[in-house]
Amino acid sequence: MSSSIIKLASSPRITLVGAGTIGLSFAGFHLRHLRAPEDLTILDTRPDLREYVKTNLPKYLDASQHHLVSRVNISDSLQDAVKDADIVEEQGPENLPFKESIWPKIEEAAPKHALLWSSTSGIPASQQSAKMQDKTRLLVVHPYNPPHIIPLLEVVPSPSTSKDVISQTLTFWKARGREPIVMKKECIGFVSNRLAFALLREGIHLVKEGVLTVEEVDRLVETSMGPRWAVWGPFKSYHAGGGPGGLEGFFKNIGGTVQGCWDDAGRENVGDGWERDIFCQAQESYGVVDTAQRDEKTRKILEITRK
Amino acid sequence: MSSSIIKLASSPRITLVGAGTIGLSFAGFHLRHLRAPEDLTILDTRPDLREYVKTNLPKYLDASQHHLVSRVNISDSLQDAVKDADIVEEQGPENLPFKESIWPKIEEAAPKHALLWSSTSGIPASQQSAKMQDKTRLLVVHPYNPPHIIPLLEVVPSPSTSKDVISQTLTFWKARGREPIVMKKECIGFVSNRLAFALLREGIHLVKEGVLTVEEVDRLVETSMGPRWAVWGPFKSYHAGGGPGGLEGFFKNIGGTVQGCWDDAGRENVGDGWERDIFCQAQESYGVVDTAQRDEKTRKILEITRK
Repeated sequence: MSSSIIKLASSPRITLVGAGTIGLSFAGFHLRHLRAPEDLTILDTRPDLREYVKTNLPKYLDASQHHLVSRVNISDSLQDAVKDADIVEEQGPENLPFKESIWPKIEEAAPKHALLWSSTSGIPASQQSAKMQDKTRLLVVHPYNPPHIIPLLEVVPSPSTSKDVISQTLTFWKARGREPIVMKKECIGFVSNRLAFALLREGIHLVKEGVLTVEEVDRLVETSMGPRWAVWGPFKSYHAGGGPGGLEGFFKNIGGTVQGCWDDAGRENVGDGWERDIFCQAQESYGVVDTAQRDEKTRKILEITRK
Repeated sequence: MSSSIIKLASSPRITLVGAGTIGLSFAGFHLRHLRAPEDLTILDTRPDLREYVKTNLPKYLDASQHHLVSRVNISDSLQDAVKDADIVEEQGPENLPFKESIWPKIEEAAPKHALLWSSTSGIPASQQSAKMQDKTRLLVVHPYNPPHIIPLLEVVPSPSTSKDVISQTLTFWKARGREPIVMKKECIGFVSNRLAFALLREGIHLVKEGVLTVEEVDRLVETSMGPRWAVWGPFKSYHAGGGPGGLEGFFKNIGGTVQGCWDDAGRENVGDGWERDIFCQAQESYGVVDTAQRDEKTRKILEITRK
């Protein structure tokens, strides 16, 4: 194992580019694992950055860690922020011109060995790296919100990303008990959003058709496939559902019903006019939500499933 | 509250028609709540029924309840089995001719007040009741497998089902801590399967495209949307994701990405040829699965989410 890999697994210096909710959630996660809070740097252009981090970062930490916040480096200079970094993790504005223009600057200012990760939810590394000198260094590490709680990281290399960079990235996350999953191809929306949005689309359809309300769809998921899929994903669940015949047996038994559901599935699009009623239902049912309670329950569930 | 409703909430006599895995799982559930095991009757035409129940029903019970099994009524005569029932719950063969022909017989032999439920995963009550004298009595109560663990019950009345029958059905399940959700319209596959199969279809597509393996898709779901949706369903999750703007804010921020995923979504059909590789992957990854372990974890998760 090379010394840089050992360093990544144990005590890297990390620079976060962008301090929105994803950035702060990552900051919370990294602070739990870094040797010292001084090894974390947060770069953002907002004028009140220091005050903002002081106010908001504690939400992503246990009370016992709040004192670490004041020791985190705060920076508004890209050069200063990345010059000693072993990892640069970007969650800036979600548009290609921003990403395309920032990576050549980071590439120039950061050490040659630094890993370059984008948290983008949709812009592939092959596009973001267009203007970089060395496109082998960049890849997408897309979290499932919020990353200080949820284990999944979608690791999406471009065709240019080097095997070594992928391997170091996996080493880093696995050493911290996380679940990095490497996509073998770039595709629109990566995987988690594509899967979730497919279910969401059908949920929108059924609400629009008046079969259930927004709240009833949620309740239904929370009391059936949610807890099930926390333990076993859909393929394994249906493999079990097929008895001794496995997934093949499942499709032999109820493939007709599956196809019937697919044939009748909704094809709603964004802007089709379902929005008004559904946004309104969500607002009336949920108003302002308390994510702290959600996160505490999610953490307990993960303790059970990871045993 | 009428006396029959009080009886349903506390001490009904229940007859299960059909003793497959769903039937035995329901038997396990009911035995936890019935006043006495003699109040449960299991009807099935298999010749070794008594031996079969004795061997398999304990799998759905805690060890402390195994002694109850020998006291359950076993019957191969429809007339005898339903004549004193307050509830008849059917999970026989999943085809319309069977369902259509059995309900008139049950209707004739059971007490007038008895509730008539079908556990079908796809044949609506409006079709099943075609030959009944009184179509107001029948409705679908579709469980999410296995019903002795999973709280959801999809309650799907036909347009003929009486309000009183629906209301008594809800009373029964709510009194037992379950989550009955009433669909306002019959539709193909009801709701839970439609939602789950929409996600499954996209999973099949991404495996077929070589983006991830079957096992990776499962792992991805288990470490992201599974635990999330066990706590908050998809609408509530995205409502939170939109910050102060709620679900509307969410679509304002990333509606373009959502539509991009929908436009690019897979349209695989049953029999398209993806089966061979995917069934094979499932078999190689999972082989024979141990549902007892899954059920224990699911039970613990539900203890957390229902607090």
